[in-house]
Amino acid sequence: MPSFSYLKKIFYKDIDQMGLVYYSRYFEFFEEARTELLNNMGIKVTTIEDLGYFLPVISATCDYKEGAKLEDIIIVKTALQSMIGIKLKIVYEIYRKSDSHLLVSGHTMHVFTDKKGAPKRPPKFFIEKFKLISHD
Amino acid sequence: MPSFSYLKKIFYKDIDQMGLVYYSRYFEFFEEARTELLNNMGIKVTTIEDLGYFLPVISATCDYKEGAKLEDIIIVKTALQSMIGIKLKIVYEIYRKSDSHLLVSGHTMHVFTDKKGAPKRPPKFFIEKFKLISHD
Amino acid sequence: MPSFSYLKKIFYKDIDQMGLVYYSRYFEFFEEARTELLNNMGIKVTTIEDLGYFLPVISATCDYKEGAKLEDIIIVKTALQSMIGIKLKIVYEIYRKSDSHLLVSGHTMHVFTDKKGAPKRPPKFFIEKFKLISHD
Amino acid sequence: MPSFSYLKKIFYKDIDQMGLVYYSRYFEFFEEARTELLNNMGIKVTTIEDLGYFLPVISATCDYKEGAKLEDIIIVKTALQSMIGIKLKIVYEIYRKSDSHLLVSGHTMHVFTDKKGAPKRPPKFFIEKFKLISHD
Repeated sequence: MPSFSYLKKIFYKDIDQMGLVYYSRYFEFFEEARTELLNNMGIKVTTIEDLGYFLPVISATCDYKEGAKLEDIIIVKTALQSMIGIKLKIVYEIYRKSDSHLLVSGHTMHVFTDKKGAPKRPPKFFIEKFKLISHD
Repeated sequence: MPSFSYLKKIFYKDIDQMGLVYYSRYFEFFEEARTELLNNMGIKVTTIEDLGYFLPVISATCDYKEGAKLEDIIIVKTALQSMIGIKLKIVYEIYRKSDSHLLVSGHTMHVFTDKKGAPKRPPKFFIEKFKLISHD
Repeated sequence: MPSFSYLKKIFYKDIDQMGLVYYSRYFEFFEEARTELLNNMGIKVTTIEDLGYFLPVISATCDYKEGAKLEDIIIVKTALQSMIGIKLKIVYEIYRKSDSHLLVSGHTMHVFTDKKGAPKRPPKFFIEKFKLISHD
Repeated sequence: MPSFSYLKKIFYKDIDQMGLVYYSRYFEFFEEARTELLNNMGIKVTTIEDLGYFLPVISATCDYKEGAKLEDIIIVKTALQSMIGIKLKIVYEIYRKSDSHLLVSGHTMHVFTDKKGAPKRPPKFFIEKFKLISHD
C-alpha cells in the first residue's frame, strides 16, 4: 500500500481562540499529505490535470482526539488504502512529533473524473504505479 | 428538533482551480450555520465560552454530491439532532438556491468541555432550551 | 463613486488565539465586499469572466486599528475609487456595528486582463456602468 | 539584519479559479516565514506569548507581480528590517524556485503589546538578539 509521512509545522493562521488548530484545517493538511504521497509515487497532481483527469473528493471524515497547538510539529501519515474502479480511498493519521500522541485520524474518498466532472477510468500509468507499489 | 436554514453566497476565496468550492470550506459553512442555529435558539457561542464552556468538534464528516460555484447562493439546512449526555450531534444539508440541488451533507459531533478540554456537563440553560425547542 | 456597505458576521474560523480576527481574513472580507459592490452595480464577476475578462489584484494594503471579535457584526464600506485605463482602485473601511469603531482600512488595486493574464481594456458595459454611477 | 529564506510548496487549497494562488494566502505565507525567521533567531512565538507579549500586525501590504501555481515551490525571503521602539518592520519577497521570478513582495508592521492589546516594551532578550544579529 503506497504510504507517506508528511511533516508540517503549525502556524498562527491555523489556530483558533481555543488555542488549538481549527477543525477544518486538518482537511487542508490531509490534502498536502496526499499530494506528497502521490508525488512520492512519481505522480504530480498538475500532470494528472494536464492529461484531463481530476480527483474531486466525494467524502471526507475526521475524528479529533487531541488538538495541535502553535508551533507543534505534526506528522501526517497517509496511505492510498484502495483503488476500486474509479474510486480511491486515502487514509490519514496525524501525530504530534514531540510526544507521538495521535491527534486526529480520517479518510477521503475520491473519484476520477474528466474536466466536467463526469466519471472517467483512471489513466493507465496511475493504475500501474499503484499496482507496482502495492505489490512491493 | 432545533433547526435553522442559513443562506450564504460563494466568493472567489472559496473556489479552487476546478472552479468549485474547495472541500474543506464546507466545514467552515457548517460552523457558520450551527452558530446561527444556536443564535436562533437565543444562545451565543461567546456567552457559552464566557461561562467557561467549550464545544470542540470530536468528529466531522461531509459527503460531496455536487460542487457549488462562484456567486452561487447556498442554503445550509442545519439541525441539532441529538444531545446525549455531554455530546451534541449536529447535521447539515447544503442546497443550491437556484435549482434546489443537494450539494453536500454531513454532520459534526461536539462535546461540552471546560477551558482545558476536560469533559463537562452542559450548562442548565442550554439543556432547557434544547428540551423546550425539541418538544415544540 | 460607486459604493456599497456589506454586513458580515465574524465566526470561529476567522479568529486566532489572540481572540481576534486573523490578519489575512480581512482581505477575504474585502473580496466579499467588492463582489457585492459590483453586484450592486449590476455586474457579476462570473459574467465578467465568462466574457473573457479577469481582475487580478496587483496590490493590497490593510491598516489594523482594532480587532474584530467572535460574533461581532462588521460593516465593510467599500467604494470603487478610480478607474484609470485598465486599473481599478477599490477602497475599504471596516466598522464594528455595535460601537461604530473603525477596525481596519485598506485598498486593493486590480487590472483587467485576459485569461492568460495579459492586460486588456475593460469591457464597454463596465466602463459605462462606472461612468453612469460616478456621475450620479 | 536578521533574515531567513523559507521554502514552501503550493497546494490545491491555495489556488483559485484563475489557477493562481488566491491573494490573501500570501499573507499566511508571510506569517509562516516570519515565524521561521524568529525561530532561526532562537525565538519561539509560543515563548513570547507565554511571557505575556503579543505581536499583532498593525499594517500589511503586498504587491503582486506574478502568480504562483499548483505544486510550485516558492522561496519566501524575509528580513526583520527595523525595530524602532515597540515597532517591528518585517519585509518579504517571494520567488518561484524553478525560474527565480519575483512573484510578490510586501511588508508587515507589528507592535509589541500585552495580552489586552496595550503597547508594551519588547522583552530584553528580544532586543538583545535583534542587536546581536543586526551587528553581525
